[in-house]
Amino acid sequence: MAGKNMLIAQSGGPSSAINASVAGAVAGAMASGRIGHVLGALNGMQGLLERKIINVSERMRTTEDFELLIHTPAQALGSSRYKLPKDSADVYGRILGILREYNVGYFFYNGGNDSMDTVSRLAAFFREKGEDIVAVGIPKTIDNDLEETDHTPGFGSAARYVATSVAEVYLDTIVYPVPAVTIVEIMGRNAGWLTAASVLARRDGIGAPHLIYLPEAPFDPDAFVDRVTQLVKEKRHIVVAVSEGVRLADGSYLADTGAAEDMFGHKTLGGVASALEAMVKERVRIDSLKTRPIQFSTLQRAAAHLASATDLKESYECGYRAVETALQGVTDVMITIRRTSDEPYLIRYAATPLGGVANKEKKVPSEWISKDGADVTEAMVRYLRPLVRGEATEKMVDGLPKFFRFDMTKPVDPADL
Amino acid sequence: MAGKNMLIAQSGGPSSAINASVAGAVAGAMASGRIGHVLGALNGMQGLLERKIINVSERMRTTEDFELLIHTPAQALGSSRYKLPKDSADVYGRILGILREYNVGYFFYNGGNDSMDTVSRLAAFFREKGEDIVAVGIPKTIDNDLEETDHTPGFGSAARYVATSVAEVYLDTIVYPVPAVTIVEIMGRNAGWLTAASVLARRDGIGAPHLIYLPEAPFDPDAFVDRVTQLVKEKRHIVVAVSEGVRLADGSYLADTGAAEDMFGHKTLGGVASALEAMVKERVRIDSLKTRPIQFSTLQRAAAHLASATDLKESYECGYRAVETALQGVTDVMITIRRTSDEPYLIRYAATPLGGVANKEKKVPSEWISKDGADVTEAMVRYLRPLVRGEATEKMVDGLPKFFRFDMTKPVDPADL
Repeated sequence: MAGKNMLIAQSGGPSSAINASVAGAVAGAMASGRIGHVLGALNGMQGLLERKIINVSERMRTTEDFELLIHTPAQALGSSRYKLPKDSADVYGRILGILREYNVGYFFYNGGNDSMDTVSRLAAFFREKGEDIVAVGIPKTIDNDLEETDHTPGFGSAARYVATSVAEVYLDTIVYPVPAVTIVEIMGRNAGWLTAASVLARRDGIGAPHLIYLPEAPFDPDAFVDRVTQLVKEKRHIVVAVSEGVRLADGSYLADTGAAEDMFGHKTLGGVASALEAMVKERVRIDSLKTRPIQFSTLQRAAAHLASATDLKESYECGYRAVETALQGVTDVMITIRRTSDEPYLIRYAATPLGGVANKEKKVPSEWISKDGADVTEAMVRYLRPLVRGEATEKMVDGLPKFFRFDMTKPVDPADL
Repeated sequence: MAGKNMLIAQSGGPSSAINASVAGAVAGAMASGRIGHVLGALNGMQGLLERKIINVSERMRTTEDFELLIHTPAQALGSSRYKLPKDSADVYGRILGILREYNVGYFFYNGGNDSMDTVSRLAAFFREKGEDIVAVGIPKTIDNDLEETDHTPGFGSAARYVATSVAEVYLDTIVYPVPAVTIVEIMGRNAGWLTAASVLARRDGIGAPHLIYLPEAPFDPDAFVDRVTQLVKEKRHIVVAVSEGVRLADGSYLADTGAAEDMFGHKTLGGVASALEAMVKERVRIDSLKTRPIQFSTLQRAAAHLASATDLKESYECGYRAVETALQGVTDVMITIRRTSDEPYLIRYAATPLGGVANKEKKVPSEWISKDGADVTEAMVRYLRPLVRGEATEKMVDGLPKFFRFDMTKPVDPADL
């Protein structure tokens, strides 16, 4: 009675909102009555090629299952760093064979710009072969760097984590009378959206962050040292928010500068916060100045307890609408969010050809960065504010979050489908 | 009509629950009808000596003020690292003079074991001088290392942060198929209570943390390397929780070992997680093994958004009862929590002579650490579980927490009291 099966897979870096898209896609499939089984490939294309495929819809039986999945951080189906070779008819052929074997008519990939490239290539291959398998991308990235969409699911939750944590770190640093510089390192190698979100901490008498450095503006060490010196004299305690991808005027990463390497050696420690700390220690001449580098590390992308309700809802909707779009026979597109108003916050969903998204990175526009390159503008604040609204209501048991897990050990047998 | 004034100050390291004690003390004073003004000294004894004293009760006008203060992390009155000289009649005399000047009959100090020493010395000095000023300690420390109390306000919230974050970090690490060792460094230089709390992450199919190292058990590098190797082969992704104060058998801090210093240099980076990472990289022979050190840094003590409702309630009660106790004329005591049952969780409050608390540290008992020194026992889990229960309900505006701030710029004039 029901139609062909659908298959969904996840890719790229974790986020607190990515599973809401899977929940939405499963809901869309079930609600349509036109899709057989919802299958999930484990660890992205890698698992698909290895036939590590589970039956997702079988596991989603109750409203609580959906609620738990929505609030569980990091890819519940696993992710992968494996990239499909660009021109290997063999690999594309194998994928097609496997999708046929599992009677899949609808393919969904949930990830960032690399993943969208994969979806686009698959869509082209299916078309070329005359197959009626549609391929639709569902956007996801805490980096917020996808083109053609106002913002990406996952970003609002990470932004809420960053803003909340910067405010808390600031309250922690001001308790002692000694002057202090706290340097918070935030993810984003090429795009500074998430670092920019730290600005939302700044309200109700909280001045932090006092300086914000994004990869889009060249970093000037002399100006930095001057600003820090002046700000500490004025405010005593300051917080600096810095993107891991901040670069010097010559284009080299600050994290890779000789100074940082000599003093701290190991790459996996990150390095921008430590490089800036070394700079402050060496060049800011203020008595008994305390410095502290903080890396938000993987918590900024996995702290589901601080997920934005707005973000989770939009992530769910993107999954749901991806299925609706696919059922209309549309292929080679990614679901997008278009904003029509900041306040009240109004959006609509659409679909955009993958060609405009794949392998592209949306940077912070220069007019949203202050002239001195050490802050963001009010337009950025207006853009960011609605995205962190609303508190996620995850289920707690004994004060601790309950999470959803798929059983990864029971691959589905295509003969049972 | 009302009696003498009371003065409260805060000390030691920040916690998410410390201001709940101030809120409770103010409530206790107001409810009693027997106390004039509630004054607050800024930055502990340092501010008291400098007459940086504000009128706290004037600022606490509405139920919302109390709610906001309860949920605001880190000392709202500021803290200090300043220690009173042990035998300076001059300093004690100056403090007494200032308390007289502000007509203070009740003195409260909210802090850890150092602070309790201060309270005890002051109480003895007042007695010796025949003054009827009572001095009562209100316990606070995320380290949970105070004697004579089942646990300390602040610990439960930090424990909830640690357990939640370890679970989230684990979900983040398992998304990739590559084997990985994530090492999470947790505060606690001499006592491992907070590191032990990471065990609460372990449930619902979450195996993390797979290894737990406390300062109370000597760390054996060879055994560590063997366990990590075996566990990664078995589970692929593991999380190690390690206290910053873990020591080798010879008593030296692991964070200070030559290897860690040579490779990573800078002390303020912490160092245990990096030292263990270096050990894993050097000695665990597993292909494409990924390692990641994570420091929870100041967020573990300031992340009020993860405060335990149980902890906030108890912290408030300790403040409230400190005032009741003082009004009975009892001096030189600290409020304590005595547990009578784990499940149902039942406690009662009491007061204990400060002599049994001051300058002492309560360590994790050896029978709560597993024989191999790499885990905690079920008794520890039973002890910990009730302390993280309940979600703090902080006020959010636009998805971000609203915090309480005292106006530090308006010291009170004793002539106005």
